Amino acid sequence: MAPNSSTSLSKTTTAARTRWPSTPPSPPIPASPPTYAASSPVSTVLSFSLPRTAPVFTRTLSSMIFLPVSATPLCHRLKIGARTWFPSVADDYFRKCLDKGRKTTSALLGFCVSGVQIRDDRGILWRPSHGNIHQFTASDVRRTLRRFVSSNPTSDCEPNCAFASAVYSGSEGLLAQLLELKAWFENQTLFHFYSTSVLAAYDNDDCDDGQFQGRPRLRLIDFAHVLDSDGVIDHNFLGGICSLIKFISEIFSERIEEDSNSDSVRELEQDRSSSL
Amino acid sequence: MAPNSSTSLSKTTTAARTRWPSTPPSPPIPASPPTYAASSPVSTVLSFSLPRTAPVFTRTLSSMIFLPVSATPLCHRLKIGARTWFPSVADDYFRKCLDKGRKTTSALLGFCVSGVQIRDDRGILWRPSHGNIHQFTASDVRRTLRRFVSSNPTSDCEPNCAFASAVYSGSEGLLAQLLELKAWFENQTLFHFYSTSVLAAYDNDDCDDGQFQGRPRLRLIDFAHVLDSDGVIDHNFLGGICSLIKFISEIFSERIEEDSNSDSVRELEQDRSSSL
Repeated sequence: MAPNSSTSLSKTTTAARTRWPSTPPSPPIPASPPTYAASSPVSTVLSFSLPRTAPVFTRTLSSMIFLPVSATPLCHRLKIGARTWFPSVADDYFRKCLDKGRKTTSALLGFCVSGVQIRDDRGILWRPSHGNIHQFTASDVRRTLRRFVSSNPTSDCEPNCAFASAVYSGSEGLLAQLLELKAWFENQTLFHFYSTSVLAAYDNDDCDDGQFQGRPRLRLIDFAHVLDSDGVIDHNFLGGICSLIKFISEIFSERIEEDSNSDSVRELEQDRSSSL
Repeated sequence: MAPNSSTSLSKTTTAARTRWPSTPPSPPIPASPPTYAASSPVSTVLSFSLPRTAPVFTRTLSSMIFLPVSATPLCHRLKIGARTWFPSVADDYFRKCLDKGRKTTSALLGFCVSGVQIRDDRGILWRPSHGNIHQFTASDVRRTLRRFVSSNPTSDCEPNCAFASAVYSGSEGLLAQLLELKAWFENQTLFHFYSTSVLAAYDNDDCDDGQFQGRPRLRLIDFAHVLDSDGVIDHNFLGGICSLIKFISEIFSERIEEDSNSDSVRELEQDRSSSL
């Protein structure tokens, strides 16, 4: 059953332009009505018009966001928030969301995987079905986040996280973009986002020594259930984002530790061979 | 109905010593079993033993935490988290929590007031009943946070937030302590805290030009429903803490703005009188 009080989005052909404001607005963003724009019912992308004070919602095909990347980028779609229903929701819809939240990892992790498409360098795709994804455990989520940045994603071996540094770290990496999004959510009191997802994507073509030509992209998508916040931050979405950040930072830290151990082993081997 | 899988707390007479770790642990806190200590079933205070890696829970009377302050400090008890039940909870307890969460501000704000005791300089107390507190709206919560730092808390006038700067701001103010707590929750993957509260208190005796002798205190209390986190941050508690921080920072910002406007008016008046 469709919710009865969500914010409606009008349709135009405007494409996504920029992301959320890079710094939390100070003083707070005036609570003026936002501009909505859309081109397709498939998914919705949140962006902001300059001077980055009034948010502009744009609705567009996911692939349109990733024009600079190939036709089959590596995508990871994560529904954020332990609670996917809003306070005034009808009782049957509320129970449906509640059941779903308890079956998926939403309640436990504050987010769940809602779609994934991973391709290895031979072009082999791994795209689990919705039925499969909805049964993901916390361990599956952790492993999928690792596969997303591995050069052996479709293999049965342990994901090697070869691209963790290139995709997750750095000033243009997904972690930095998530932290930027988190900073915005700590301050924005315009909207509450229910059942909204983040879509992370990059292209592993043109990979040169673990670095890519295009930077990884992160976008907010799916705004069917966006409500006015009544001056309160979206603590439900924010909690989920913090949890996702922790998951990703752990993968990145593990990778650094592995690299550091490998370096130490290599140094030991070099010392050993030079002493022989 | 009592939950069936919460962490049990043993009883000793150890009093609360320190607070949560001041900086997020790096590398993550080892998941060793915590030490528990308690002296009274009334409320529980979370503290940490040096070297601040293994948390120590202490159970103590609320008043014991505030030994340096008077017998009737100004207290504010806020239950943190939109969700007060844990995933494996029995169905009837879950429905009870759910109903309560929707009646109070928990679902909307990510926290609710669960107790308040405010005293003005004439010794007049304002201590609303539980029944009254449970009907608080977002607006009531905002007003109570303002009354907590006002010199006219028991008056029908608008709270003047005279002590906002002394209580909420500064390196030892409640806002700084909340930010410290938030930083810890962004990293800790040891426990999930359900139905846990923060207790904020200070003493408005010995007030000298809006400044107090003792610093305001913030403590985590009530650990009846603390669970192992299974390596996931407590996104529910974290979201609530972020929401509370936003509420308090807004009160503090408004106060600064008012002071700034008063200064401007005063300067204008001085300019005007000197030109006459």
